[in-house]
Amino acid sequence: MLGRAYAALVTRFGYFGPAGTFTEMALLDWPPALEGERTAYPSVDATLAAVRSGEVDAGMVPIENSVEGGVTATLDALAAGEPLIVVGERLVRIRFVLAARDGMPLARVRTIGTHSHAWAQIRGWVGAHLPEATYVPTLSTASAAYDLAPGGEGRHDAAVCAPIAAAAAGLTVLADDIGDFKRAVTRFVLVAKPRHIPPPTGADKTTLVLYQRSDHAGGLMALLEQFAARGINMTRLESRPTKHSMGDYCFSVDIEGHVLDERVGEALTGLKRICADVVFLGSYPRADKARAGIAPHNADEDFRAANAWLAGLRGIVDWADGRG
Amino acid sequence: MLGRAYAALVTRFGYFGPAGTFTEMALLDWPPALEGERTAYPSVDATLAAVRSGEVDAGMVPIENSVEGGVTATLDALAAGEPLIVVGERLVRIRFVLAARDGMPLARVRTIGTHSHAWAQIRGWVGAHLPEATYVPTLSTASAAYDLAPGGEGRHDAAVCAPIAAAAAGLTVLADDIGDFKRAVTRFVLVAKPRHIPPPTGADKTTLVLYQRSDHAGGLMALLEQFAARGINMTRLESRPTKHSMGDYCFSVDIEGHVLDERVGEALTGLKRICADVVFLGSYPRADKARAGIAPHNADEDFRAANAWLAGLRGIVDWADGRG
Amino acid sequence: MLGRAYAALVTRFGYFGPAGTFTEMALLDWPPALEGERTAYPSVDATLAAVRSGEVDAGMVPIENSVEGGVTATLDALAAGEPLIVVGERLVRIRFVLAARDGMPLARVRTIGTHSHAWAQIRGWVGAHLPEATYVPTLSTASAAYDLAPGGEGRHDAAVCAPIAAAAAGLTVLADDIGDFKRAVTRFVLVAKPRHIPPPTGADKTTLVLYQRSDHAGGLMALLEQFAARGINMTRLESRPTKHSMGDYCFSVDIEGHVLDERVGEALTGLKRICADVVFLGSYPRADKARAGIAPHNADEDFRAANAWLAGLRGIVDWADGRG
Amino acid sequence: MLGRAYAALVTRFGYFGPAGTFTEMALLDWPPALEGERTAYPSVDATLAAVRSGEVDAGMVPIENSVEGGVTATLDALAAGEPLIVVGERLVRIRFVLAARDGMPLARVRTIGTHSHAWAQIRGWVGAHLPEATYVPTLSTASAAYDLAPGGEGRHDAAVCAPIAAAAAGLTVLADDIGDFKRAVTRFVLVAKPRHIPPPTGADKTTLVLYQRSDHAGGLMALLEQFAARGINMTRLESRPTKHSMGDYCFSVDIEGHVLDERVGEALTGLKRICADVVFLGSYPRADKARAGIAPHNADEDFRAANAWLAGLRGIVDWADGRG
Repeated sequence: MLGRAYAALVTRFGYFGPAGTFTEMALLDWPPALEGERTAYPSVDATLAAVRSGEVDAGMVPIENSVEGGVTATLDALAAGEPLIVVGERLVRIRFVLAARDGMPLARVRTIGTHSHAWAQIRGWVGAHLPEATYVPTLSTASAAYDLAPGGEGRHDAAVCAPIAAAAAGLTVLADDIGDFKRAVTRFVLVAKPRHIPPPTGADKTTLVLYQRSDHAGGLMALLEQFAARGINMTRLESRPTKHSMGDYCFSVDIEGHVLDERVGEALTGLKRICADVVFLGSYPRADKARAGIAPHNADEDFRAANAWLAGLRGIVDWADGRG
Repeated sequence: MLGRAYAALVTRFGYFGPAGTFTEMALLDWPPALEGERTAYPSVDATLAAVRSGEVDAGMVPIENSVEGGVTATLDALAAGEPLIVVGERLVRIRFVLAARDGMPLARVRTIGTHSHAWAQIRGWVGAHLPEATYVPTLSTASAAYDLAPGGEGRHDAAVCAPIAAAAAGLTVLADDIGDFKRAVTRFVLVAKPRHIPPPTGADKTTLVLYQRSDHAGGLMALLEQFAARGINMTRLESRPTKHSMGDYCFSVDIEGHVLDERVGEALTGLKRICADVVFLGSYPRADKARAGIAPHNADEDFRAANAWLAGLRGIVDWADGRG
Repeated sequence: MLGRAYAALVTRFGYFGPAGTFTEMALLDWPPALEGERTAYPSVDATLAAVRSGEVDAGMVPIENSVEGGVTATLDALAAGEPLIVVGERLVRIRFVLAARDGMPLARVRTIGTHSHAWAQIRGWVGAHLPEATYVPTLSTASAAYDLAPGGEGRHDAAVCAPIAAAAAGLTVLADDIGDFKRAVTRFVLVAKPRHIPPPTGADKTTLVLYQRSDHAGGLMALLEQFAARGINMTRLESRPTKHSMGDYCFSVDIEGHVLDERVGEALTGLKRICADVVFLGSYPRADKARAGIAPHNADEDFRAANAWLAGLRGIVDWADGRG
Repeated sequence: MLGRAYAALVTRFGYFGPAGTFTEMALLDWPPALEGERTAYPSVDATLAAVRSGEVDAGMVPIENSVEGGVTATLDALAAGEPLIVVGERLVRIRFVLAARDGMPLARVRTIGTHSHAWAQIRGWVGAHLPEATYVPTLSTASAAYDLAPGGEGRHDAAVCAPIAAAAAGLTVLADDIGDFKRAVTRFVLVAKPRHIPPPTGADKTTLVLYQRSDHAGGLMALLEQFAARGINMTRLESRPTKHSMGDYCFSVDIEGHVLDERVGEALTGLKRICADVVFLGSYPRADKARAGIAPHNADEDFRAANAWLAGLRGIVDWADGRG
């Protein structure tokens, strides 16, 4: 959670909508958002733009393995433009339903509307139960449902969406929990301007983008070594093209720990030296509350003891210099 | 290129269609395909299924930074199911046009149809020139164009697509080369059943999927070390969830070199030992013909000399055993 | 132990003498030597020369932490000249006595003869019990004793030596077990011409000298990585000047495992490639019989399985080539 | 050199004598010693004890590749007992002469007295020119000469020693520059109590003893990685038994750079964390004045820029905390 004083200032929340998407579900799982204002935006970009302009105080967007799209878009959009940082994360269990207007039997469904990432996760079920059905792309899973609501202009026979979207659109559920991967979860992050970093909880993550220096031998190994040498676990790594040309890469990574942890701080300065650039995208409590494993001799007190010892050695020089 | 004898057997080509997509452009850049049969399939999955079933001998699909979608889908689809390998690659320079039915002036365009990945690459241009325009998702960039052809049921005012799709659909180009990243290229791969590996050319790539063993300390560092210890460059790395749960990862990587190169072979056996699984997805000539840099002491002759030396040492044992 | 057939051919043993040294004790702990001929030589060099010339079949010399001298001399002498290999090792618990001619009381001892390395290990005791005594260097601990025997020309009051040397010289023991480090052991090795390597026992060591290539970035780390990548433990490491100038170094190392072990063989070929030279000084059973810890996935069967898998992949190429 | 103010306080110098040894030559090459008091001690231990007791302000002793003995003894003696640090080093080109009393022709020399380490370096010459001669151990090369001076009790025919020792003892040089390795140099260090560290010159060395933690996986690699990650070169490495039992090791190392250099400081704190103990044995100007190569991005300003950047990130937290 955010610090108390700061949290009071965050009352206006944006999210990648419309209402009824899994992203809204993630936001509704963030307690302060229940009492605040919640505004839907039509895309990840629009949500982040609203945070950057100050229209909202924070925005919830999908970041990993999403059914709403926006995964790589989110990573790229966070790293470019006015600085934003992640201040929290939520995991949402993905449960898809096939829903249609009243009176449409399952056997007659020939066209299915949904977002392309959702489609990718139900192809197995569709192949088994509606092998003749074809795909109609929509802007989001929720809009696939709303297009079938009274007054909607949807021409597909059924929509694949979250249960709350089907309910909100007044549709009938033809089949429940049809995802091919029953344990699928999507990760969402709440982003804000860099005015505050949530204090360490012992179960934190830090998100970074590392731009490789082309003149640096060793490459990725040298970057990872900065984490390994301090016993820091990495929980996500992606090489991302820098958009200049194929083959020029940066790395988007999540690590265990908080920027205020000594081991993380030292790893960050090491990376800052050897990378062309390091973009800090936030330290925040993990949604799953799993505490960071700290390898032996890498706790804050180990770093402080070592620093005190070095200061003692260096003091020999100072003492002598002052003595002359 | 494929070996000559084998190449004669590959005459039926599938691709992620419809005609007019950048994927078809990649296939038309593969000389044997010009003389062979070319069949469009509606998705990456359908294309790969046609290769697996034997309906076609090889299939062209997008694999990296695509505007047609299918990037991560392709990686996942290749790694799962009946084995397939990459036998060639092509790079296509992406050039988007905004095209509409005759008589539609640029100023009146309010809705734009295209694939979501193409939309991501023209948002800058749209924001500057048609800030009021909204997005209509379509199955592919080509289908956005065909939907506007006579008899098409497209309801969008204009399509964003490849020049050849606009021409094929009889549309008028309202604006040319509107992509935000002028140097964008997409990488396509030709996949086939593992009956043949193209012989080494000195400018080859090898594609692998590495499944991490959870009991193996060191993790990714230990995997990368297998390449680093033999001076092998990595040209792409992505961590991919294994679909079992968030946090269980495999790594999709491209390296320089061919499975028949000694340094690559030894790295592969090292990975095979320390990984839970290694999926070999092919060794094939690079589209850009850039020769692999071989670090000093890592050429085939260096490996052979070292192996001969070891055999000599071990021969001391054998000689003595045989002597008694 | 040596293989049976070969062992029968090794009947003449040399050692760094004279009789009564700890080196002779090491040789007497090697069963075949009890039945064979045993010849003392005046130095490590002379012992090795006798092995090289064929005058003896094998020679016992100190190699680590010795009280007889010869440690670094042994390492250098093995690495230079006609190839020799280590075929066995023995550990001897070092127990020093202070001994003198009959009638010399402890209180009157003013001069103490012994080898300089023994002197280094009893200075604490001498400081506490005979603070006025001065040191007289001798060729070995045993010769310090023999010089005091009837007819000897020793002018020191007492000798520091092994118990058997004091007894052989007919001296009286004034003080027993006077070493400052009660757990001190010295390591001795039996060396022979490279005609036979003792077969693997599962508790083996391999001794190497690694000459660093000056043009090789990474240096020692790169060498050690060859062991680490295969889970091989190192039990001794010394940087040794190559005698050309200060700062040009080679490394003398002992590792766990046998040259016939797959993981050791692969590490050796890796080193052979990246080093300027690798001198193999033998694989032999450990004196302490401690079995080598084999890290997971580094057993011989792991290597064989990985090699078989690679051969299968490469077979795809061969099959196709043969088919055309 | 020492800082000026402090240097004025260092006027009494001890050295491993007697006069005429190479160690005295090293001390005479240290300008302040020319004007100060110089006292010879009979051993490295006695010299260090005189420094520890305050009898002298600093002591010169051999530390690497010595002909006077004391190499490993010096390393061990420095690491144990009351803390001492190295404040300077000198390299001395070793030149041996064979010298005898007037009237002794070369052809009649049958016994040669010298220190055992000197003997090791002239065996080639002796084998070629006096193959029948035998070795008589002496306390030092200088004492081998003095024993032949009028009144001396030497019973050897000739001495191998430094030219100045032969001259001081009034001996005749029978053969000059007889060392087998013409480029041999010995390294000597000046040690003192840890009251002052010579200020950085840009061409400095730091000497450390690293005690490995038995529970730390990765071992030596992890220690060396602390240097490698900051581009620090190592100029000497020796594994040394800790005297508790064979196999428990510490590492004696020299690295390029000064404890006040940022990269060295950070490496030291890293080592302090992962080692059981780190003994700092001084930072001092190199005798050869070779400036430390600083790898790109490892200069002091790189560390300071990275630390400032981290402080900025952490300031986000502080600012917010102070705000509530």
